[in-house]
Amino acid sequence: MGKNLTKRGEDYSKWYNELVVKADLAENSGVRGCMVIKPYGFAIWEKIQAGLDKMFKETGHENAYFPIFIPKSYLSKEASHVEGFAKECAVVTHYRLKNAEDGSGIVVDEEAKLEEELIVRPTSETIIWDTFRKWIQSYRDLPLKINQWANVVRWEMRTRLFLRTAEFLWQEGHTAHATREEAIEEAEIILGIYAEFAEEHMAVPVIKGTKTAGERFAGALETYCIEALMQDGKALQAGTSHFLGQNFAKAFDVQFDTREGGRDHVWATSWGVSTRLMGALIMTHSDDNGLVLPPKLAPMQVVIVPIYRGEEQLQAIGERVRPVMEALRAKGITVKYDDRDTHKPGFKFNEYELKGVPVRLAMGPRDMENNTFEVARRDTLEKQIIPADTVVEHVGNLLEEMQESIFNKACKFRDAHITRVDTYEEFKATLETKGGFVSAHWDGTPETEERIKEETKATIRCIPLKPEAEEGSCVRTGKPSPYRVLFARAY
Amino acid sequence: MGKNLTKRGEDYSKWYNELVVKADLAENSGVRGCMVIKPYGFAIWEKIQAGLDKMFKETGHENAYFPIFIPKSYLSKEASHVEGFAKECAVVTHYRLKNAEDGSGIVVDEEAKLEEELIVRPTSETIIWDTFRKWIQSYRDLPLKINQWANVVRWEMRTRLFLRTAEFLWQEGHTAHATREEAIEEAEIILGIYAEFAEEHMAVPVIKGTKTAGERFAGALETYCIEALMQDGKALQAGTSHFLGQNFAKAFDVQFDTREGGRDHVWATSWGVSTRLMGALIMTHSDDNGLVLPPKLAPMQVVIVPIYRGEEQLQAIGERVRPVMEALRAKGITVKYDDRDTHKPGFKFNEYELKGVPVRLAMGPRDMENNTFEVARRDTLEKQIIPADTVVEHVGNLLEEMQESIFNKACKFRDAHITRVDTYEEFKATLETKGGFVSAHWDGTPETEERIKEETKATIRCIPLKPEAEEGSCVRTGKPSPYRVLFARAY
Repeated sequence: MGKNLTKRGEDYSKWYNELVVKADLAENSGVRGCMVIKPYGFAIWEKIQAGLDKMFKETGHENAYFPIFIPKSYLSKEASHVEGFAKECAVVTHYRLKNAEDGSGIVVDEEAKLEEELIVRPTSETIIWDTFRKWIQSYRDLPLKINQWANVVRWEMRTRLFLRTAEFLWQEGHTAHATREEAIEEAEIILGIYAEFAEEHMAVPVIKGTKTAGERFAGALETYCIEALMQDGKALQAGTSHFLGQNFAKAFDVQFDTREGGRDHVWATSWGVSTRLMGALIMTHSDDNGLVLPPKLAPMQVVIVPIYRGEEQLQAIGERVRPVMEALRAKGITVKYDDRDTHKPGFKFNEYELKGVPVRLAMGPRDMENNTFEVARRDTLEKQIIPADTVVEHVGNLLEEMQESIFNKACKFRDAHITRVDTYEEFKATLETKGGFVSAHWDGTPETEERIKEETKATIRCIPLKPEAEEGSCVRTGKPSPYRVLFARAY
Repeated sequence: MGKNLTKRGEDYSKWYNELVVKADLAENSGVRGCMVIKPYGFAIWEKIQAGLDKMFKETGHENAYFPIFIPKSYLSKEASHVEGFAKECAVVTHYRLKNAEDGSGIVVDEEAKLEEELIVRPTSETIIWDTFRKWIQSYRDLPLKINQWANVVRWEMRTRLFLRTAEFLWQEGHTAHATREEAIEEAEIILGIYAEFAEEHMAVPVIKGTKTAGERFAGALETYCIEALMQDGKALQAGTSHFLGQNFAKAFDVQFDTREGGRDHVWATSWGVSTRLMGALIMTHSDDNGLVLPPKLAPMQVVIVPIYRGEEQLQAIGERVRPVMEALRAKGITVKYDDRDTHKPGFKFNEYELKGVPVRLAMGPRDMENNTFEVARRDTLEKQIIPADTVVEHVGNLLEEMQESIFNKACKFRDAHITRVDTYEEFKATLETKGGFVSAHWDGTPETEERIKEETKATIRCIPLKPEAEEGSCVRTGKPSPYRVLFARAY
């Protein structure tokens, strides 16, 4: 295909790394672990942002912005939070540079040392709860439902574009409520939004569930999650929503006058999705020819390529193409006409396949004669000849059909990769040969969870939201278990 | 008025500080110099972002994202850039925290010291040009027109909300071109976008010009700027666009194959506006009753307040209000119906005045009888009784009229505060008694510019874009001068 893309079957991981770079999504920067998100990749992220932001606002959330720095002492205030979290992070110790005395360049000015170090936020619970204390006095100030779009930094040792980077972009929601029930409901509403967005916009099927105690967010009483399955059989956590109880309110002394005339600490949630979603999107749909994008997130939904000899033919094709472009745009479809004379049609076809443009229209001399377009869909690579006067309607329908078809394909793959096993032998064999989710009984103890992880590299991805009651015995210990949980090796 | 807001005439600076906090725009955080942008303030910033982003995209710019960290060595590569710029900044020296051995909390892990310190970006020229080297090989890759929305950090010692904060939000555009002329044209196109946005969306009149050599951006050959005038007679630089020549291309070795078969360094621009615009917006229009917002940037354009006794009246008013709300929304107008029973109408009126909601509708028992609304406009505080069946059209027209009227008022003030002076006595007297821009002759030397600044605290805000030729003599030295420049004390 002339794309020089490693095949998924050969080396899935290499395929992914190459694809991200070749499709112009992102690349590594000169700063260890920090990526550059290239314009084409960023345009997809902007669509993800816009879609989610709309859903957050429709459910009464407001955006705000909090400082990138967190004083070191804030991190210690919520004990389990700092224990589980804040160790690998970027620490600011000085606030000035100066010219080196020997003229060798610039050096840190040792006289400009901060009294208290600042941490580049790995997540913002602490600085936000320090602020909420000032915003919340009474039940009338509740619920407080805030979101921020921001960059965060976690000093990861092994990084991969989008999946695990030292700096990444995300949204983090932080809410405060008068009651425990309302906070739990909020965490569940958000989980619903995440799942709906993943499935209906990204065409990525997800399983909703809760994390085991060992996999919970540091400081949370409950962590809800959506789990997706990649084509290599590994799971990917695509979003989490945490019920934080009163932990942060107590740590930062956020109390309110209750409606009943009392005084209580507020109840909290936090929740986030990040540029990691880009990784999930790429790995769920793409193939050996390059990116496959669901139409709803494609920055360019349709590309039109003229096939011509000489300026005269090009002009004639241009005249046929123009009204089609206008009609597509009037339907809200993004379309590009690529009439560059520096590249051959075959080169362009390859490029747009690699970049996952959902629909490609081509018009050549024979199409001119017959007044038709060649319509190629990226997901199946099928081509059809369509009369020019129905092509706009055809493309509109095709984009809708593709959105659904891409999702159905991913569902089918995912469903075929949930395997119920009842013995540890089957458990291990499934992980080795087939991958995917393994639905198995577990005795509910962190010790067994840990042992299974050590022995198989599989973790409990989630306890399904409404687990089907089924008496069984743990695959590892044989002890009793009331329902199955989902294991998988994961990103 | 019950707002407890200091009056502008009493203490303009205090008025501003109080207004920003009381109108729920922003507040100081627990981190020195870093602000929290509150939801209402952030909603205005989102409208600024959306408006500018659309204009950038319409002129062929694409968004991308570059790392927040810049290796220290990058800063030294462009000599004048580091000289003029990068000294006061946040320096990351370590990447891990650990529990203190004495159990006193967490401390920096001295074993996790970075080999090379990282700087939190004060601006991104260096990291972006390090990336552009990989993206640009040939004239076919040009022009490259990239923008990013990001947070940046400059370690300011004296900070003020929005006007000067250690961390702030901005957009920074970075472009690369094949020719000097094209780069200059780009810098001028952006200046035009900034001016158009300031005047047509923010209703803030601006003067376009260029900076003197002494006030130029570090590393630029020319800095274009827009200058606004605040109500206290001080100028505010609202945006800058820089022609960088080949300085960064040479520093980062970004060369391209020219169309003619040669090899050359590319030509560059960079440009930015920041959350400082919020300060300009607030200080240009607001009054002793609170914020005045141009309708185009108001998060809430219309608020409707019912005046009632008892549930029955409230319900009857609600029924009259509903179709009006729907009709306003159908026109794309944002409207809120404030039927909270926890606050009196007078309290609500005060609150929305303070927050600068452009139009307030009220309906009380007499309006019910006459089927009318009381319509109050925020800028002039005028009230009118309008029949319910024409109120939607009336409000639509009123919002447009207000946008224009707010701008005209600011223009009138600004124009009345440009004073032509020909002697240094007049120059100093104007600054002391009247403030505003002083249009005067200057001999063109940095020495005189510096002396005037020391003696009067006034700087040359700009050399107007197309200065009117006029032989004159410098107000300070009497030496010859070909045209007038604009001086002012500034934020």
